[in-house]
Parts: sequence; C-alpha cells; structure tokens
Amino acid sequence: MMSRHLMLYKQSIKVCPISTCGIANYNIPQKRTISSVTRPITKFKNITYNSSLVTKKLHDTRLKDVSDEESCNTYTYRTHTCGELRPEHEGRKVTLCGWVQFSRLSKFLLLRDAYGLIQCVVNNDSINLSNIPLETVVKIQGSVALRPKDMINRKMETGEVEVVIDNLEILNSVENLPFNLRDYQKPKEQLRLQHRYIDLRFPEMQKNLRVRSHMIHNMRRFLIEKHGFVEVETPTLFCRTPGGAREFVVPTHHQGLFYSLVQSPQQFKQMLMSGGVDRYFQVARCYRDETTRPDRQPEFTQLDIELSFTNVDGILTMIEELLYESFVKSLPKPPFKRMTYKEALTTYGTDKPNLTYDLKFVNIKSVFPDKLNDDEFGAYALPYTKEIGKLTTKYKEKIRQCAKKYPCKVVLNENISKELGDETSRNILNKVGDSNAVIVALGDIENSALCLGEIRQVLASLLQSKNMLQVKEGIEPLWVVDFPLFLKGENGIETCHHPFTAPHPDDMHLLDSNPLNVGSLAYDLVMNGNEVGGGSVRVHNAGLQEKLLKILKIEPETLTHFLNALKCGCPPHGGIALGIDRLVSIACDAESIREVIAFPKSHDGKDPLSGAPNSISDEDKKYYHIATVK
Amino acid sequence: MMSRHLMLYKQSIKVCPISTCGIANYNIPQKRTISSVTRPITKFKNITYNSSLVTKKLHDTRLKDVSDEESCNTYTYRTHTCGELRPEHEGRKVTLCGWVQFSRLSKFLLLRDAYGLIQCVVNNDSINLSNIPLETVVKIQGSVALRPKDMINRKMETGEVEVVIDNLEILNSVENLPFNLRDYQKPKEQLRLQHRYIDLRFPEMQKNLRVRSHMIHNMRRFLIEKHGFVEVETPTLFCRTPGGAREFVVPTHHQGLFYSLVQSPQQFKQMLMSGGVDRYFQVARCYRDETTRPDRQPEFTQLDIELSFTNVDGILTMIEELLYESFVKSLPKPPFKRMTYKEALTTYGTDKPNLTYDLKFVNIKSVFPDKLNDDEFGAYALPYTKEIGKLTTKYKEKIRQCAKKYPCKVVLNENISKELGDETSRNILNKVGDSNAVIVALGDIENSALCLGEIRQVLASLLQSKNMLQVKEGIEPLWVVDFPLFLKGENGIETCHHPFTAPHPDDMHLLDSNPLNVGSLAYDLVMNGNEVGGGSVRVHNAGLQEKLLKILKIEPETLTHFLNALKCGCPPHGGIALGIDRLVSIACDAESIREVIAFPKSHDGKDPLSGAPNSISDEDKKYYHIATVK
Repeated sequence: MMSRHLMLYKQSIKVCPISTCGIANYNIPQKRTISSVTRPITKFKNITYNSSLVTKKLHDTRLKDVSDEESCNTYTYRTHTCGELRPEHEGRKVTLCGWVQFSRLSKFLLLRDAYGLIQCVVNNDSINLSNIPLETVVKIQGSVALRPKDMINRKMETGEVEVVIDNLEILNSVENLPFNLRDYQKPKEQLRLQHRYIDLRFPEMQKNLRVRSHMIHNMRRFLIEKHGFVEVETPTLFCRTPGGAREFVVPTHHQGLFYSLVQSPQQFKQMLMSGGVDRYFQVARCYRDETTRPDRQPEFTQLDIELSFTNVDGILTMIEELLYESFVKSLPKPPFKRMTYKEALTTYGTDKPNLTYDLKFVNIKSVFPDKLNDDEFGAYALPYTKEIGKLTTKYKEKIRQCAKKYPCKVVLNENISKELGDETSRNILNKVGDSNAVIVALGDIENSALCLGEIRQVLASLLQSKNMLQVKEGIEPLWVVDFPLFLKGENGIETCHHPFTAPHPDDMHLLDSNPLNVGSLAYDLVMNGNEVGGGSVRVHNAGLQEKLLKILKIEPETLTHFLNALKCGCPPHGGIALGIDRLVSIACDAESIREVIAFPKSHDGKDPLSGAPNSISDEDKKYYHIATVK
Repeated sequence: MMSRHLMLYKQSIKVCPISTCGIANYNIPQKRTISSVTRPITKFKNITYNSSLVTKKLHDTRLKDVSDEESCNTYTYRTHTCGELRPEHEGRKVTLCGWVQFSRLSKFLLLRDAYGLIQCVVNNDSINLSNIPLETVVKIQGSVALRPKDMINRKMETGEVEVVIDNLEILNSVENLPFNLRDYQKPKEQLRLQHRYIDLRFPEMQKNLRVRSHMIHNMRRFLIEKHGFVEVETPTLFCRTPGGAREFVVPTHHQGLFYSLVQSPQQFKQMLMSGGVDRYFQVARCYRDETTRPDRQPEFTQLDIELSFTNVDGILTMIEELLYESFVKSLPKPPFKRMTYKEALTTYGTDKPNLTYDLKFVNIKSVFPDKLNDDEFGAYALPYTKEIGKLTTKYKEKIRQCAKKYPCKVVLNENISKELGDETSRNILNKVGDSNAVIVALGDIENSALCLGEIRQVLASLLQSKNMLQVKEGIEPLWVVDFPLFLKGENGIETCHHPFTAPHPDDMHLLDSNPLNVGSLAYDLVMNGNEVGGGSVRVHNAGLQEKLLKILKIEPETLTHFLNALKCGCPPHGGIALGIDRLVSIACDAESIREVIAFPKSHDGKDPLSGAPNSISDEDKKYYHIATVK
C-alpha cells in the first residue's frame, strides 16, 4: 500500500547475453510483441546463448518506473544508443558510437554499447571492415533499414532493423586484447581484475553496477523524500576507536602523529544525534584491515542510519520498509521473521541461520536426566531423512572436521546405540520420529550448538545434492535479536556488538554481578544465511557508558569527546548499518561481493590492476617521519 | 521550461533564529495567514532577533516541492515535531521530544527540536520545571491548547498554541555545557569545533547540513533519473598518482608497501569509460595533503562526472543544466558566460574573475610603440573613478605589497607622468576616459596581469567601502575555457590541469616544437570569484598520452594499467569535478567551507574534537612495519 504512494525511481534493467544480443538493454520500452519466429542462433559462430541472465527478475512492479523520462543520449554526439532502434525508426539518419563486437564477410558489423547491440551493414565499396580489430571504438553514421523478413533476429532487441553505413570513423583502435569478450571463454578472476576496464564490458558487470546505483538511489529516495532523513558526510580521517577491529593508520607530517581510517561512522552518528540531527543516514565508505578473511575488502560501503527518540521496533520496522521498497528483488511483506539469538543458536547452531531450508535441531536434554540441573549442558539432535542411507566416508570425514573444531561430543546415527546406550538411543529416536536418522552433539550449550550448526550445513549440501531437501526460492530475511551484551574473550570480557550498545533494560541489575548474562538491544539482519546488517539501541547516558567501558577495560580518556557528547544533552537513539556490497550481491545473485564492486582488491588487499600497495619514495617517508622496519 | 518536467526533490527550508522561535522549521505547510498582531519579542529575556536567516531564499519554485509527503515522525515515539503544531491541533493529545531551550517562572518551558520550537505550560503542581538545566532532553506528553489572544506570538511558527503538560520525563540530563546556545554569545570557532555536537544545534548548522543533503540529492536525481547516469563507487586506497599533489600514504602489513589515498577518482573514471560505463558520476571523497592552504580540508567531497562520446560543449551544457536545476539559490538561465583563459587573465588578471563587479583592465600596449613587436610584453591599466580622491597610505601600502610579489612595474595614478612621461601618460588617460584615475602595470603579460589582478581586488574593497562600486546581487557563474596545456614550472614543464587533459586539436603541431604554446580542452567553472569546478576533455589515445607523459617527465611505467586501458578500446571522453564543499558554502552564504561540513578539521589538518592525529601504539607500528623518525 505504501508503495503506491512512494514513487521511488526504478529503471527497468534487461540484460542480454553478450554473445547474441549485446551487453545489456536498459530502458528500452518494449511496446511491440515479438512473434515466435526466431533466427537460428548459429548465425553467428562461436556463440553460446546464456539465458540465465535474461530470466532474472530485476525489477519490481511495486516501484514506479520513471525511466521513460530518461535519456542516455543527452550531451553526446550520438543520436541513439545501440539498443534502441526499432522498425519505427526506418529511414532515420542516425549516429551511433560503440565497440566492434563482431564483423563478418567484410559486410556485417555488430556494434555494441552499454545499452545494446545492433547490426550495421556496408553497401559501399569505400568502407572496408576487414581490418578492424574487435573492440575497436567507432562512430557510425547511417540510416535505419528494415531487415529482410528471413533475416530478422528475434533474439536481439534490435533484430528487426539494421543500420546501413554511410560513414564509419575509427575513434580509437585497439592493440592486443588480453582476453576476448566471450561468455564461453570468460577468463579467471585474477586476469579479469587485472584488466577490469575490459571486464566491465561484460553484461553481468554492466548490470551489477547499474543495479547497485539504482538500489542505493531508491534507498536515498525512501529516506530523504519519504521520511525526512538528512544525509550527512562524516570524516574518514579520525582517531583510533578503542576496542575495535584493526584500523589502517595514516601518517601525517606531524612527527609521530597518525590519523586512523574509520571502520564506521559510529561515533560521528551518535554525536550527530547529540547535535540534534535526529534522522541521519549516510552511504559511508568504511575501512577495516582484516584482509585475511575471505570475501572482505579493505574498504567497503555501508548504509549507515541513526535515529533519535526510537526503539528496537522503530528501527526494525524502518529497515523492513526501506528494503521492501528499494530492493530490486522481491522480498516477503514486512514484518520480517524475528528470532532471538538464543533460539537461532539452539535451533540452527548459528547466529545467521539460512531459513530457505528447514533442518532444525531437536533439544534432547531431557533424555539425559542426570544433566537436567546442569545449566551449561546442551544436547541437540539433528534429524534427517533415513532415505539417504548410510553416510559415505567423504561426508563422515567432513563431519569429523567440524567436530574437531569444538570441545563437544558428536555422535553419528550408526554409532548412537554403541556410544550412548540402547535406552538413550531409543529415547532420542522417539523424539525425532521413526523416519529420521540423527546426528547428536553433546557438550556445553554454545559449543555443541555451533558444532551441530556447521554439521547442518554439510548435511544440507549432501541432501540437496541428492534432491532430498526442499529449498525455498527467493529471499528469507530474518532478524536475530536479543544478542548478549558481552562475550568471554581471550583477554577477559569483550563486547559482542560494540561498546556503545545498550544493555537490555531487564538485565541492568546483572551488570556488576554477572555481566556475561546481560542481554543487549542489538540485532542483526540475516538473508539466506548472510549477515547483511546489524545495529542496536545505543547507550545515551554518560554514566552507564563509562561503566561499560570500565567492564571492557577501555580507558575513558580515549573517548573524552564522545562521553562529553553524551553529557551535553544526547537524546536516546539507535541505528543500524547495512552492508551494501553484500546486499547488492544478493540482489544480483553474485557469487562474491567483488562482482558488485567496480574495482575490488583481491585477497590480502592487493590491487591486481595497479599493483597497489606499492613502495613509496624516501622523500615521502621523510615528509611523513616514517621509516620501514622489519 | 525543463524544470517543469523534472520533478526534482525540493524540501522547503525555513530557518528561525534560535533565540525566538527555535532551531529551524522544515516543511511545515503554512496554510494560515498570520495577522500583524505580534507578541513582543522581549517576552523572553536575553534574546535578540536575527532576521537575516529568515529572509534567505533557500528554495526555488522551479523545483517541485514534494515535502508534503514526508514525515519526520515515523519510527519514533513522538507524535509531532516541536515545529508543526497549529490551532487545528487544538485538543489533540501529543507526545513531543526535544531539548529544553528555556524555562520561566517554573511554569513555561520552551521545547526545541530540529524542526522548531514550542511553548509548553504546567497546570499542575506535581511537575517542577525549576531544576531542569537548559539543553536537558525531555519527553512531554500533553494536549494542545490555543493561547489566549494576547499571548499569541506571531514570530513563532507555533506561536498560536501551547502544549499543556500532562507528563514530563527527563530522557537525559545535562552536566556543565561548555557554551550556551545563544546567537548573541556565539563562541569562537575553535570552541565550536571542539564541541561540535552542541554547535550543530545552532540553526545555521542545521540549515547548512540540510541544504547540503538536498542539493546533492537533487544532483543525483538529475543525473540518474533524467539523464541515465550510473553512480559508481571507486576505491580510495590506490597507488600513487605520478605528478599529482601530495597524497597521504597508508602503510599495510606488507613490509614497505603502502596505499595512497586518492586525490580524485580520475584514473578510475577514465577506466570506467574504457569499460563501457559511458555515463558515470560519483559523490566522491577525495584526499589531499595540503593543509597549509587556508580553507582547505585534508578530505573533501567532489561531484565527479565523466561522459563518453562528448565534447567541451556537451559537458558545459550538462553542468549548466545540472546546476540550474539542483542549486538551491537561483542562477542565471543557461548558457552561462564563457571566457577564454587569456581573456580572463588580460581583463581581470586572474583565472577566476569575480563578475559581480566591473573594474576591467584596459590594454595599453599601443601607447608603447617601441614594444609593439614584443610578444611577451604586457601593459595594462586599471581605471577607477576619480571621485575617490587620493589613495590613503594604507591602500598604497597594500598595493605595494601586491606589486612586490611579481616581477613587473606598477605605477600609481599620482606618479604616472613622472614615471612614464607626459605623452604616454596623456595617451593612457585618453584611453580610459577623463573621469577616471588609473593604476598601470607593465612587464611580461602574465606577471603584469596577475599583479594588476590582485590590485583590482584591493581597489574593489576600497571602492565598495566608500559605496562607489556597483556589486551585483546573486551569483555570476562563468566558464573559463582554453587553458594552456602546460606551465613553466620550477623543474621544467608542468601540467596546467593534469596529465590526462587533451591538447587543443588546433595546436597538435606545436607539441614538440613549442609545448608552452599548446592550448588544452580544459575548463573551470567560477562563481563570484571562487573556482567551484574544473575538468577537461581527456586524452583517449595511448600514443598521445605517452607523448605527454614524456614531455612531463613522468615514467610511463607508473601508469601501465592506465595506458593499457587506453590501448584496449577506450572511447573519447571528458568530464568535470565540482567542489561540493565550496558549492554548498556559496548556496548557504557561509563564510568558510567548515560551516557546511559536519565535522571539519581546523588548520593544519587537526581535529579539535578528538585531537586527531594522535600517536599510535608500538604494536600498531610493528604490525605496519614502520618506525617514527625525525
């Protein structure tokens, strides 16, 4: 209902495989019905048809499509894009600019730009197509003609017409291409990243970057136009965050003094709340030096939101509506499912359960009567269909690898009588039902659940490979709420979210006596097993904040400015950060966030394109008062 | 005309001085005519009325106002903002949240939030207002009542009503405020920056941040929705730009290897062009380590745009339409004035002339017949009204200071006969007219013009102080075009814009023989004497680019990735970068860009708020393989 009123911008994005009908077709109004007569794809050799891209649902009718207003030809010397010519343009003089995708018999040339592909033909001996290398950039002036009926290509948006070339100008010629733009011979990622300027011409990359731009624009329109938020840019050169992840440092010409690159605008957005900017957001660049984790980037983008005079329900509702209205794939209607951290842990063995398939734990603590009073003890069974038969050695080994990581006992179905005794075994099987086999994990609650959670994923992939697991299509968003405030870390008590998260009001009395049992007002948003965002209601009281810092052994002096902001009239507030890279990759069905980032770094923070990081000059080192040491 | 079709988002922004009627009033539909009966401002003591903010024209009727759709109360536990209550709300139960702006007689309380100010009254002995410090954050539940006729405050948007308090909850109390929120006792900038979280509550800062957010949003809507641009985020951690300004370096855990923080997305946007993303923009964070220049920040924001298959006219037209439709102040209708660099230099003595006043040079070379064939020789007279009389010693000293900086001869009106002889003097005065006095500069063209350009500014301020100079209201945008490609620098030939700027096609033949005479396809946008943007058509041919690098003595190996991007099918392209901080400060009539940045650094890159840059731990230094040295 809301969406009818909200006229968010939505560009319809249609992507054609590069091989047959060009890079991508954006915004071409499709008024004509295309008949079922198709030209054989084999017309162009070395071409395979990749239909998966075409069928992807990338636009949502809930969002108003205002793309008709848009022109991609303004301020250029082309008259049309390569994707927009149709029979109604017959006889029109046009100027097109693009890349030579293919040429044939010195007579036909396939011209490509970001919007599509069109066939151009030579009727004139003075134009020689035979020596034009692929990917040469050309300007073509000519006139639009209908193709002969038997030459119509129904797989191409422009397949009913062709452009008869009057004049062809080479705008830039091409030297050795490191790889060809052919779907079927797509190069390895390292080579693609090294020559990203070519790789970006692939239809998936064109589409991904456009989806990213549109989705973020939709979010901005929702927040600014509909709900009065103000986008505020905050610094990235700042001081170190105590107790945070490792931050990049930036030497200055002041000897011995360094900025830190912010890992998030957390402190700034809370200071904005104190400053009366009560509805803030920012599409914020953030930096974290943790390149050893897979699928992470040293710099990344988050949609950072903060709101005064609100509570958990307010923030969760806002994000649900924001995503429902701006996400380019359809989402379930809000409210999204919610689950406590404890429920997620003891049902799925993870804080980011993938709800597209079932496979839930059964709590079997009751079959161990002598442990009933042991609050720490956890016993979980993971039932799965007997039909799958005995696990193969390969899968047993995978499960063993999971079990090794945790201090708990894992029992496979075949060993259950032997290891737990006949009676216990019978009681367990009674609980899970006759048609099921089980894997059992015993130990302390957290370790046994986490261990069985990993085994759940192994089992899911096995069941899926045998077609014995129902997996839902689409996206299953889930809020995980009520995280604990603290965790037991290597060096004592650590924060579970960050030091500014508010304790759960019901647990205030436990802060001194039993901090590890204090809940928090933190929440995570999970989509199909991926954490896509997280936030909390924050501490707004300086005294409470100082107390939490003390528990976490963080010197309050490192946060004087921040504590002062709380002391000088800071309203209650809370917020969230959504990981844009991850969200867009889910929207694009991309395998990695690198597929939705124009110029990503590869593993370990290296840039295959420029070679960065590099050595720097002695002069620079001297200016910044630094020397390189072992 | 265009603007009727483009429904850009525009929030009407009305700002009230903090002293009388609150922080700011945003989006409150004003349907009721306010009669001329006004409540005396003196009702509240220690208050002065600052009308300048109210009269500022911040919205432009060309942009459609869709603010009626917006709600600032969604997802919060307030029902209304402090700025929106009107007589039609009489009897309504409301919940308000905000800061205590003022309280009086233990009965009246002025509650403020970002949207306005409202009077709340106590009718109930159980609520005691006397001990609530100013700036305390409270939640008030109550009901809206009409004020008695004689108590109506016409200066307040909400001045016809008040809220009778049923319940008052203190959400956060306040300890010692470092300064009060009173216009008339506004603290020094250093203190304001140190406690920015309080300073942001001033109406100017609230307004400036909102103007910034809206203006950038309007630009995005113009580019994405109307003209099919794609916003692409590019990395900030990159390799060093050869021949650029000093760049911050970021050590990595790879011993001796550093990222550089980009000074602009220049290389990336050109690689995007090669990648077929032919209409790119980005609101980009950029970094430049040049903190010694006043009114600069180590990090700043630019609207970065690049376009394929275009030319100078295309880009200039685009920016004119973009600004005309998105700027929050009115601009002259496009096309904007254009002037060559040479004309600007020899008419105003600067590459960024302020056209809001006249004061043009007169070329007096013809009165020096023996110099007519000397191409290097420049002779300029700056005429000004005789009425001003003899220059005072103070102004003569200022002019002497200007003259000292340049190797040229400066002659004041009183010395002209003595120094140049009677005949020359007469000829000069004939050229400028009888009613004028002149200051003359002689020397090489560039130095004499630049010198007289500085003197022009001194003279303008003198004339303006005497009310003898007509200064136009509003904004006078100007394109300065046809910059030279190179400059003579200390170490040989330097680039005037950057190494990727295209030479003027007419001057290609001079590249080898006379590079300093080669023009370029670079342009700057100037507003009232401020450079607000600059760009160029770029080199797209790898061979030409290599040639330019050679002239500039830049090793092509440092740009291998970039040269490859040109070699592999890069289309002709060009673009521009607009300085957002400067543009917004012009839109806000702010004296410094620091007034339109939420958390700016002060001089020399220091952050008065957090104390950054700071020393870092030995552990961090070790991890990044650096040591601090002298």
